[in-house]
Amino acid sequence: MKKFVNDPANFVPEFMAGVIAANGDLLEAVPEFQLIKRKNVDASKVAIVQGSGSGHEPAHVMAVGPGMLTAACQGPVFAAPPVDACYETIKAVATDAGVLVLVNNYQGDRMAWDMASEMAEAEGIKVVQFHINDDVAVQDSLYTVGRRGVAGNFFVMKACGAAAEAGASLEEVVAVAEKVNNNVRTMGVALTSCIPPAKGDVIFEIGDDEIEIGVGIHGEPGRERAKIQPADAIAKILFDAVADDLPFASGDRVALMINGLGGTPPAELYVLYNKAAQLCADRGLTIARNYVGEYCTAIEMAGASLTLLKLDDELEKQLAAPAETACRIF
Amino acid sequence: MKKFVNDPANFVPEFMAGVIAANGDLLEAVPEFQLIKRKNVDASKVAIVQGSGSGHEPAHVMAVGPGMLTAACQGPVFAAPPVDACYETIKAVATDAGVLVLVNNYQGDRMAWDMASEMAEAEGIKVVQFHINDDVAVQDSLYTVGRRGVAGNFFVMKACGAAAEAGASLEEVVAVAEKVNNNVRTMGVALTSCIPPAKGDVIFEIGDDEIEIGVGIHGEPGRERAKIQPADAIAKILFDAVADDLPFASGDRVALMINGLGGTPPAELYVLYNKAAQLCADRGLTIARNYVGEYCTAIEMAGASLTLLKLDDELEKQLAAPAETACRIF
Repeated sequence: MKKFVNDPANFVPEFMAGVIAANGDLLEAVPEFQLIKRKNVDASKVAIVQGSGSGHEPAHVMAVGPGMLTAACQGPVFAAPPVDACYETIKAVATDAGVLVLVNNYQGDRMAWDMASEMAEAEGIKVVQFHINDDVAVQDSLYTVGRRGVAGNFFVMKACGAAAEAGASLEEVVAVAEKVNNNVRTMGVALTSCIPPAKGDVIFEIGDDEIEIGVGIHGEPGRERAKIQPADAIAKILFDAVADDLPFASGDRVALMINGLGGTPPAELYVLYNKAAQLCADRGLTIARNYVGEYCTAIEMAGASLTLLKLDDELEKQLAAPAETACRIF
Repeated sequence: MKKFVNDPANFVPEFMAGVIAANGDLLEAVPEFQLIKRKNVDASKVAIVQGSGSGHEPAHVMAVGPGMLTAACQGPVFAAPPVDACYETIKAVATDAGVLVLVNNYQGDRMAWDMASEMAEAEGIKVVQFHINDDVAVQDSLYTVGRRGVAGNFFVMKACGAAAEAGASLEEVVAVAEKVNNNVRTMGVALTSCIPPAKGDVIFEIGDDEIEIGVGIHGEPGRERAKIQPADAIAKILFDAVADDLPFASGDRVALMINGLGGTPPAELYVLYNKAAQLCADRGLTIARNYVGEYCTAIEMAGASLTLLKLDDELEKQLAAPAETACRIF
């Protein structure tokens, strides 16, 4: 295993310490619970929290800041955060306006946040959970009943963050989350596996000429193990799966995201974007906003995902609203 | 070779088309010369151009925009742009205030820009070339006499871009470039090689337990082939090499950059940042600005570089000045 890591058991605390070292003006940590929160929480506004296994950075601790998440906690790489971390994350930023708990749809994350939310509610904190499931690849998966939540999660955080910042009520922010989740679709592809530091070995085997179409962000199987093919053909497979699912139709305004899974360089993401933009035009979709970069990774996996979000005026404004986080992804 | 690529001969034109598709409001291309320029060039201000082989994105075509480069051209992956492309790049944005040509110190790039600058000057365009050589790893290298220019180049572009935007003369902008280059130092490390699409194979061999300390951004040999070691030890090797070279001394205010070489995920870069920040504190350096992400890559190489820039008030202000490019790196 060749990685920038010291003791694999300290990988998550150490990278989180790095995030805080680089953003001490904006963020503070509670290392005991592997949670990062905004320094100044406005008690009159809805707080938004999320948390999952590590290895998907910038999701989620690097998406904390004004206009995005209020706090986030992380578990070990590819493992849900413990219940007490989730509970402390809710408590750390609970406001009178209430807390929206965003959960990507994985059984481990849902269980932890269910229990944490109940504990917080028992103390009088107003909590609503919302489950994100934008991955069209498979219906059920290794760690999910129903669809997985993947990079489309970024748009939920961004739109809800903007709504909360603008003073929306908890019910209104939840409605924004619902609207985004109902209108966002994603599918990914892996060229390589990845190596969780604590495991020290690949999470799945894949041949030198093979790709996994519809891969999950923990290396879960997708729709098909296929032979490597031209970038345009791969982009078309992802685009068609995503665009047919909602479906997206001529005249729609959309946000288009090409998300790198961690090991794919910028130039390759733009090769995919180039084809995806043509496919949008062919279908009569207008790309009102675009995102090319790393939004939800699978450690150092080479691969990418394609996300389409159908926009309305409100969403477009929310995506364009200012935000500030440890990374410049919004 | 598993990459998002169609015909390898079209890799660069296609990713550049993607950059334009995603940033048509800001940028325009002259595909014939693989050059990208700002849409609105202010004729009263100094223009800044750069160009090199592809594979280092966001350097340089993704660093074009207000407050950064005025235009950039790219050659094939890891090969200098042709003379005519450099010449057309200068001509495309030449202003009455003159053109600063930034060149990372590689023989191929220097030769192309030398000839292009002469051709432009023969037409009455005011041109000054400036060579960047921030890599402390080795004195001469495969493709250089003297030191290589690597990620420190970002700070030259940013500070000069801010100065030009503020209306500085060509002589004043050149002085900014000199100041940055005199005060910036970088060293990198590779965990893996990378595969140029047209070659279809790795550019150097490296064992499963080996790292190349002081690697160049084209895979050039560095100081030492070593065994993999803890992230903190690697960070210390890079930091000491860089900090001793200027040298950086207690009381200095610095910008600290951890640059990913293309295949290294965000979390690992923050593990390195965490240690580098401690080493800065140990040496009495105050980190006034920090940068963690991909600024100058080597396609999909797993690895990173560490850059320190000694700041003064003027540089700090220039780094903080607004800018807008195809990526959000500034």
